Amino acid sequence: MSDVINIKEKFNLFTDQWSPKRIGELNGQQILLAKIQGEFVFHKHDDEDELFLVIKGQLVLELRDRTVVLNKGEFFIVPKGVEHKPIAKEETHLLLFEPLSTKHTGDVMADITVETYESI
Amino acid sequence: MSDVINIKEKFNLFTDQWSPKRIGELNGQQILLAKIQGEFVFHKHDDEDELFLVIKGQLVLELRDRTVVLNKGEFFIVPKGVEHKPIAKEETHLLLFEPLSTKHTGDVMADITVETYESI
Repeated sequence: MSDVINIKEKFNLFTDQWSPKRIGELNGQQILLAKIQGEFVFHKHDDEDELFLVIKGQLVLELRDRTVVLNKGEFFIVPKGVEHKPIAKEETHLLLFEPLSTKHTGDVMADITVETYESI
Repeated sequence: MSDVINIKEKFNLFTDQWSPKRIGELNGQQILLAKIQGEFVFHKHDDEDELFLVIKGQLVLELRDRTVVLNKGEFFIVPKGVEHKPIAKEETHLLLFEPLSTKHTGDVMADITVETYESI
């Protein structure tokens, strides 16, 4: 049976960056937490929309035609098929909503790619 | 194309209670905001899991076999088929994540039932 999930307590359970942790699952979707800093790689997910919610810090999402800046309490949905590159100057904490099938770096493989997410 | 959504700004756009507003849609799911106070009705969703995240205040979720208390920054996933009754002593702000197909009061109809959610 489900438990009450405290988002801050879950963030205290890990320190590694660019390695999303699963904290919930419903309707074929997952809730992930991630700590990020620096630049990710440009990638896209052909079949999955992806929601980025900033819990702490600031996320810059580079798209091919524009750049989106997200502060605490703001989210953005990257539609399927849209290339995006997450960037954070300082360590930033994110909550992601996306289908369980979503691959970390989508259509590309990089040194940074995580193949299986840990549940915490 | 998607916009940046600021959750606090969206909460400032409405005052009515027990009437969820849609602020995002992805992968057949929706993100809703709701202001609640008082007691809702016991109901269930036969085919949809439902996530309740407290943004402000405190949510009491009565289940048939136990009661779950959620404070700010905490969420709980009510699995499909599980009867639940949301209660809030003071006005409480919630973010809900659930399939677009989810009905407000699930398997019951009540005076409080909203049939179509407004997008804001």
